[in-house]
Amino acid sequence: MPDKPDISSLTLNRLSVYLRCLRTLEEEGVETVSSQSLARRFHLSSSQIRKDLTSFGEFGVRGVGYDVATLAQRIHELLGLDVEHRLVIVGMGHLGSALASYFRFNDRSFRVVAAVDADPELVGREIGSIRVAAADDVARVVAETGAHIGIIAVPADAAASVLDDLVAAGIRSVLNFAPVTLGEPEGVRLRNVDMRVFLEEVAFFLQDPEVSLAPSD
Amino acid sequence: MPDKPDISSLTLNRLSVYLRCLRTLEEEGVETVSSQSLARRFHLSSSQIRKDLTSFGEFGVRGVGYDVATLAQRIHELLGLDVEHRLVIVGMGHLGSALASYFRFNDRSFRVVAAVDADPELVGREIGSIRVAAADDVARVVAETGAHIGIIAVPADAAASVLDDLVAAGIRSVLNFAPVTLGEPEGVRLRNVDMRVFLEEVAFFLQDPEVSLAPSD
Repeated sequence: MPDKPDISSLTLNRLSVYLRCLRTLEEEGVETVSSQSLARRFHLSSSQIRKDLTSFGEFGVRGVGYDVATLAQRIHELLGLDVEHRLVIVGMGHLGSALASYFRFNDRSFRVVAAVDADPELVGREIGSIRVAAADDVARVVAETGAHIGIIAVPADAAASVLDDLVAAGIRSVLNFAPVTLGEPEGVRLRNVDMRVFLEEVAFFLQDPEVSLAPSD
Repeated sequence: MPDKPDISSLTLNRLSVYLRCLRTLEEEGVETVSSQSLARRFHLSSSQIRKDLTSFGEFGVRGVGYDVATLAQRIHELLGLDVEHRLVIVGMGHLGSALASYFRFNDRSFRVVAAVDADPELVGREIGSIRVAAADDVARVVAETGAHIGIIAVPADAAASVLDDLVAAGIRSVLNFAPVTLGEPEGVRLRNVDMRVFLEEVAFFLQDPEVSLAPSD
């Protein structure tokens, strides 16, 4: 492993995508892959792939390509996926429930260990193997389960106070799915995921099908 | 309005975020904003804001900043949000139901007009004001409702055939939320949204809190 480089959010997101693609190739029994064929198969940019991967050390052999299993393992380690990350989901409506099954799906790097909701109707219910706790209990639940990543899946107007509660409970990494942009508190890594952004992207191209999308995106 | 430029997916995503931020400022009664204060308030990069906005014409006045309402309206038009986009959601489990309320929320640019599911238990149920149709009926439902954006919210192994069905039904813009990377069919705009990518991003920073994230991301 090289030292952890100064790595941007966008580069990290691309590495996650490469890892997903490499896992797909592994399942298909593919042993080596060139940046060109990886790019073609998964609609990525081959020059971007080469650039991203060289900055983390030499994974490729010129003229042969990358060893799929080795490269996947290196990215896996680099992303810190060789340890189990424990998630607490706040808000167990449709979105929280969907995220719980989504993040549980076939992935040993992440485990949903706790779920809380403000709705007394939901508290005490079993969702998967998790019993939903009361929103007031978030600090206790985080301490008891060792959760260290928080997922916010509440309505927009509740999101800021949920973030405060998570930070007060010691959580330092947060994904916010509520449709509101939250500021990143000091010492906390927060990512706002606004799904309308993706919708607006595909909608844009409806109005002008001639507009080209640079493949390097 | 300038002509539609050759615009990348990443730029579009940033414009969507700016629009969201500007709408928040509008609600607060803020009339003008500089790129610096927009950046500070919403944790964005002010040089990136200036770069993105100048490429679409001159919205800003040096030393004063942008007129919030005018800039919001220009971005709104540029993104093609001044027309109503009609969505069909395929898969009305937790994820599809969550997306239905998410995309309905406070947004006149998008309307969920149809929902289909392969599960006979769900077919015929009313979700919001939409009656869930059978998966076999997707072509009829698309034709009847005029849906032109497809949202895939089915399990990974069903996603490819759902995409085929949507394309056969005439859909040319698709958002895929299934945890599998689908290839973009000829003449179709497809965006894969893999939410594990965001999870891996926040998880990365847990292993090394010293790593800095470039603010230009």
